[in-house]
Amino acid sequence: MNTPLRSVKLAQVTEWDDGQIRSGSDDLAAEDPLQILACGNPLVVTMRTPGHDRELAAGFLWTEGLIKSCDQILSFGDRQSASELALINIDSNTINVELRDGVIKPEAPQRNFLSNSSCGLCGKTSIDAVRTRGLQPLAPGFTMDAETLTSLPAKLRCQQPIFDRTGGLHAAALFNAVGEFVVLREDIGRHNAVDKVVGWALLQGLIPLSRHVLLVSGRGGFEIVQKAIAAGVPIVASVSAPSSLAVQLARELNLTLIGFLRGRRFVIYSGESRCRMQP
Amino acid sequence: MNTPLRSVKLAQVTEWDDGQIRSGSDDLAAEDPLQILACGNPLVVTMRTPGHDRELAAGFLWTEGLIKSCDQILSFGDRQSASELALINIDSNTINVELRDGVIKPEAPQRNFLSNSSCGLCGKTSIDAVRTRGLQPLAPGFTMDAETLTSLPAKLRCQQPIFDRTGGLHAAALFNAVGEFVVLREDIGRHNAVDKVVGWALLQGLIPLSRHVLLVSGRGGFEIVQKAIAAGVPIVASVSAPSSLAVQLARELNLTLIGFLRGRRFVIYSGESRCRMQP
Repeated sequence: MNTPLRSVKLAQVTEWDDGQIRSGSDDLAAEDPLQILACGNPLVVTMRTPGHDRELAAGFLWTEGLIKSCDQILSFGDRQSASELALINIDSNTINVELRDGVIKPEAPQRNFLSNSSCGLCGKTSIDAVRTRGLQPLAPGFTMDAETLTSLPAKLRCQQPIFDRTGGLHAAALFNAVGEFVVLREDIGRHNAVDKVVGWALLQGLIPLSRHVLLVSGRGGFEIVQKAIAAGVPIVASVSAPSSLAVQLARELNLTLIGFLRGRRFVIYSGESRCRMQP
Repeated sequence: MNTPLRSVKLAQVTEWDDGQIRSGSDDLAAEDPLQILACGNPLVVTMRTPGHDRELAAGFLWTEGLIKSCDQILSFGDRQSASELALINIDSNTINVELRDGVIKPEAPQRNFLSNSSCGLCGKTSIDAVRTRGLQPLAPGFTMDAETLTSLPAKLRCQQPIFDRTGGLHAAALFNAVGEFVVLREDIGRHNAVDKVVGWALLQGLIPLSRHVLLVSGRGGFEIVQKAIAAGVPIVASVSAPSSLAVQLARELNLTLIGFLRGRRFVIYSGESRCRMQP
């Protein structure tokens, strides 16, 4: 499987192994800041693993609620004609998203922040703002059987090209209703991996993802649940533990939240009606 | 060992285990927003695990470079006399830090942002700002032998009270020059765990931590290295992989960065002169 070259960087290291000392080179997961601009206006700087930057930008705009449809994105790249861009050093760590007129109003106050791992919560000062994203409860209907669910982690694991080389990345993957692998993205930030998956789906015209399962390699936190609901994903599973606030949000908005999906076992924290547990 | 009660929340869950279905209750790592105010002015909202909030606030102020000594903190709590606080609902998810006059100027533009896991990068728009924190290179001199280093993860593991119950928290711990355990803090956010440790050290008058090792349960990312350098810690070790930018920053500022510290093996990415590898 091909790995985007910029996602991995080589470093000279020294290894100590039970008293044996070796020098050599080691693959590192790349971490670089990406500045996302909307219509030439700086929107956010996020620490991310380079690669799939368009998907990351699109997913960030979507899960932040800044765009309402894929059609609102006109293009990616530089905007040479904009005078404000003359002062900005456009390089590979900068991406500009051209949007239809009026999508983000120039006179509106811009959230202007540097985000770690595209967390989706930065830039808002009120605690109340955490909950008021205008997210709608997910519709019931979609279900998956327990045996299919337990097959997913192994499928994710064999699709992680960068993790295999560096051991240092989070992954987010989509599976369809019968547990078939759809897409996987990796990033040094858990939230970026989800934004890249959501951005991919958005650019493919697949949103809302109402018949898909999102599997994440880390824990199921509040922001992961929030981003999944924004993308319409009815089931989120993780190999690790969820947080209390993630469970609370999942229950309020009818998302099925599954944790500790390892081997032939898992724990359902919310929305168990979507899981067919009887053989 | 006592666990702060608010750090854990109980949830009713359903477990599927190889076809067997059980209902019961499960401990969840608590995740709640904390609003930090400086002299009554909203500074940041961070998603954190409740507990050690004063240390988190103090550590955040320190690693953000907003205070230069412990003496600049006058008190924690409400500021009933301040008229601006009358409009703010002070509850247990809000902490106000009273600072000496002039430490944070009221007329200065406040960084006003909601931070995920106290990442220390939110609120700044420029990519260049990531590097310009005024951090100074760490002095050489302090060393630790390889055998002592390999003993640290087991010592961290037996000090993780919340993780033992929930399986969902990051930990950061300090050890002294002979590998003795000093302090451990847990949080749903990796960076918060480090800020709590740094805040603890600051309030104990132990900064700079020039003869300590910081061990983190997750990966050694850029912000972890940045916070460690701000606290003067010469060695950072993690059980997982570092990122490329973390290695770059560690080399530039002479921090010893160790990864994959597991069993009787580790990898040195930067500053190997601080590690005594020969028996």
